Amino acid sequence: MGDLRGSSLVTLDDMRLEHIRSLIQRAAYIDGHRQQVAKTCAGRVLATLFYEPSTRTRLSFETAMLRLGGQVVGFAGAQLSSASKGETISDTLKVVSNYADLVAIRHPKEGAARVAAQAASVPVINAGDGGHMHPTQTLADLATIQARLGRLSDLTVGLCGDLTFGRTVHSLVTTLARFGGIRFVLISPDELRCPQYVLDRIDAAPTCSYLCTRDLTSVIGDLDVLYMTRVQQERFFNEDDYLRLRDTYILDEAKLSGARQHLAVLHPLPRVNEIAVEVDSDPRAAYFQQVKEGMLVRMALEAALLGDPLPGYEDEMEEN
Amino acid sequence: MGDLRGSSLVTLDDMRLEHIRSLIQRAAYIDGHRQQVAKTCAGRVLATLFYEPSTRTRLSFETAMLRLGGQVVGFAGAQLSSASKGETISDTLKVVSNYADLVAIRHPKEGAARVAAQAASVPVINAGDGGHMHPTQTLADLATIQARLGRLSDLTVGLCGDLTFGRTVHSLVTTLARFGGIRFVLISPDELRCPQYVLDRIDAAPTCSYLCTRDLTSVIGDLDVLYMTRVQQERFFNEDDYLRLRDTYILDEAKLSGARQHLAVLHPLPRVNEIAVEVDSDPRAAYFQQVKEGMLVRMALEAALLGDPLPGYEDEMEEN
Amino acid sequence: MGDLRGSSLVTLDDMRLEHIRSLIQRAAYIDGHRQQVAKTCAGRVLATLFYEPSTRTRLSFETAMLRLGGQVVGFAGAQLSSASKGETISDTLKVVSNYADLVAIRHPKEGAARVAAQAASVPVINAGDGGHMHPTQTLADLATIQARLGRLSDLTVGLCGDLTFGRTVHSLVTTLARFGGIRFVLISPDELRCPQYVLDRIDAAPTCSYLCTRDLTSVIGDLDVLYMTRVQQERFFNEDDYLRLRDTYILDEAKLSGARQHLAVLHPLPRVNEIAVEVDSDPRAAYFQQVKEGMLVRMALEAALLGDPLPGYEDEMEEN
Repeated sequence: MGDLRGSSLVTLDDMRLEHIRSLIQRAAYIDGHRQQVAKTCAGRVLATLFYEPSTRTRLSFETAMLRLGGQVVGFAGAQLSSASKGETISDTLKVVSNYADLVAIRHPKEGAARVAAQAASVPVINAGDGGHMHPTQTLADLATIQARLGRLSDLTVGLCGDLTFGRTVHSLVTTLARFGGIRFVLISPDELRCPQYVLDRIDAAPTCSYLCTRDLTSVIGDLDVLYMTRVQQERFFNEDDYLRLRDTYILDEAKLSGARQHLAVLHPLPRVNEIAVEVDSDPRAAYFQQVKEGMLVRMALEAALLGDPLPGYEDEMEEN
Repeated sequence: MGDLRGSSLVTLDDMRLEHIRSLIQRAAYIDGHRQQVAKTCAGRVLATLFYEPSTRTRLSFETAMLRLGGQVVGFAGAQLSSASKGETISDTLKVVSNYADLVAIRHPKEGAARVAAQAASVPVINAGDGGHMHPTQTLADLATIQARLGRLSDLTVGLCGDLTFGRTVHSLVTTLARFGGIRFVLISPDELRCPQYVLDRIDAAPTCSYLCTRDLTSVIGDLDVLYMTRVQQERFFNEDDYLRLRDTYILDEAKLSGARQHLAVLHPLPRVNEIAVEVDSDPRAAYFQQVKEGMLVRMALEAALLGDPLPGYEDEMEEN
Repeated sequence: MGDLRGSSLVTLDDMRLEHIRSLIQRAAYIDGHRQQVAKTCAGRVLATLFYEPSTRTRLSFETAMLRLGGQVVGFAGAQLSSASKGETISDTLKVVSNYADLVAIRHPKEGAARVAAQAASVPVINAGDGGHMHPTQTLADLATIQARLGRLSDLTVGLCGDLTFGRTVHSLVTTLARFGGIRFVLISPDELRCPQYVLDRIDAAPTCSYLCTRDLTSVIGDLDVLYMTRVQQERFFNEDDYLRLRDTYILDEAKLSGARQHLAVLHPLPRVNEIAVEVDSDPRAAYFQQVKEGMLVRMALEAALLGDPLPGYEDEMEEN
């Protein structure tokens, strides 16, 4: 992993599969060695620059750094109003590079993270830029699939709900396609189908295939993974469309009765009502585990970009 | 205290008196052993989830954890606007349980802390829910009384100002009544009298009694403790009522001239003008000490719920 | 430096030149000994009380304390709305003195920092009060000049742009004048000239002089330091005046071609367009270094006010 040191993560498309696999493996190691890694990033400072609020993501990045023994500074949304005073992202990153060893940036504008990474003299992690990329969410998804099913290939993966606007879906599909051997089942109303560029990425991966359907019940029994998504009201132009489609693909215990025992149900959260609360206690529910995996894989990523070795990790790898 | 480990604090009504006494005793120990306890919670993370801003309370919880060697993540009011996106408190707490070892929650809605404690898999501390409960303020009040007067029973305790809406008053009265031997003097205008359910709690405590009066001056000479409260404008329906009543019960040096030398004047802060600034330098003023006691007792509470023993504390208890 | 321990910094006018020199020297030492000083303030807590947002300044103060091994609590702008509830600055500082070992306060009202310092029982640093004082910005400016040119006297120092409202300019001029031997070149439109009280301070310093001009190009070749300032829109009463004057004094490579090779270009940041981006890669650009110097000198200041000695510093001073 020495070669992730000093690099930035803007999109997973830029990251080699072996690095993705390594981060997921490191996340698992961290989970089993929390005490050993608790000083890995001592003396480091992470800056969280959240130009729009995303409390869940921010807390995950911050907790990750704190649990590695590092420290955190930053801002979140409302705090920066007058502070920016027309400053460019480039200037802000040049300034913050003097304070922090690592930056996580969230910005409403597509491409902002790329600009930030180019301006900064320290590694930058894209914590979401507009409807564009959110690579650490995808790392969390992959880590959860690996933890639940033991592999990232040879899987039947259903994705359900808003497949048009859900950026986490696009990122997960295109990244899984690179691992190969995935049968995608794309479950959505016609209005919210997966965009063509994502389908093209599946087609371009020789060992992958996809099926589009509007009916969750008829396919749920085939799935190893079911990725539910939130139908976001802010993506719709009128409330009627939102209300009509929102409840179409709600997962409940009745629907789950037709699913396999090893199915892993994922959701990027927050959910509104796409998954009934009764499902939470079903062993197939993996969406809160996904939160934990997200924090662990962010710990792995932060340490890797900083070039801070995880104590004991190399030894354990050699033994295996 | 092993049995507080892993439990939540929603209301002091749920906490046994021996535990309250122990927390107050531990707060005093911490004050005398700041260096020794500075690593008590090393590796721990506290999440402060403040759905409404309360800077004073938040800073107290956060400083407490930092001074125990732990770390803090969280949000405060404005930051979360878009972040919640319709997520339930239960889901948020299930998420945050993956990040933090302990949660302090402040929420404008009554009962929110109870819901949070049920959903979380880590201990939750109620840092105020609406006009309802704010148990760590009461612990701060009790710790201050103990520090000033050496006991929590056999006291004449005056409470003055807004006794209708002041939740800190109700919580202090009902908790002190459990300790027993308290003569309460309830000083307020008719419009802001203590509610019946609080009076019932006093009546139900066999060794306690109460007296209601509108006149602070006539009773101040009898008091061991005088608990002043802020008359909050937001509790009133019209400004005239507010202005007429606000200044009725202002404590100044003239009124204090009739008080005992050992009187302890408390106030939950912030004050507007219920206590003249000239009183600050009177040795009977205990309200800034109350702030310190609040931080200390929160340190004791955080360590106890986490099950982290205070270094040297058990030894010192055995010796005494 | 033992005599800075426990004192507050409201304005540099109150600080002896030997202390200013010492802080700058300590900042340089810290830069070369980052590992050695990383525990200097272990166990300390800094409170950042930012009544108006100023993300850059807040992050600088916070990172400084974290890199000394201390911890940080605080608030920034929007978070405090309902929290203050009419509380005076004095009361807030008396409260916060119970939490923190050191306070950095930013407030829109002139004189707020002085009031805060008088009320607090811990040292207070003025992080900017209205259009008034911002002493740590001036320390950053001085540290940058020292780092670039090796001295704080016998210099020709140009200040360009808004010399009327730019508080950083006034503070830098009056402080440099105390060091002596400075030729000030004051470059501004007539509407934004340096106020008389600042000119009087130059006149009162026997070895200093000043020249006022509207033309940057004709004087740039004489300068050792060029301090550019932002023309802040919020200082103008109408937009026409702002637009007309804003672009008058833009620094670009063409203008720099007439400057000396050792010129140091400073700017308090954020810049809008007063300095063309092409200048960033010119070795004479010192404004991002200025950010680093700002953090370092805040580290020096925080440690000095807390009375925490920098490990190895005294030894190194003795050897030299």
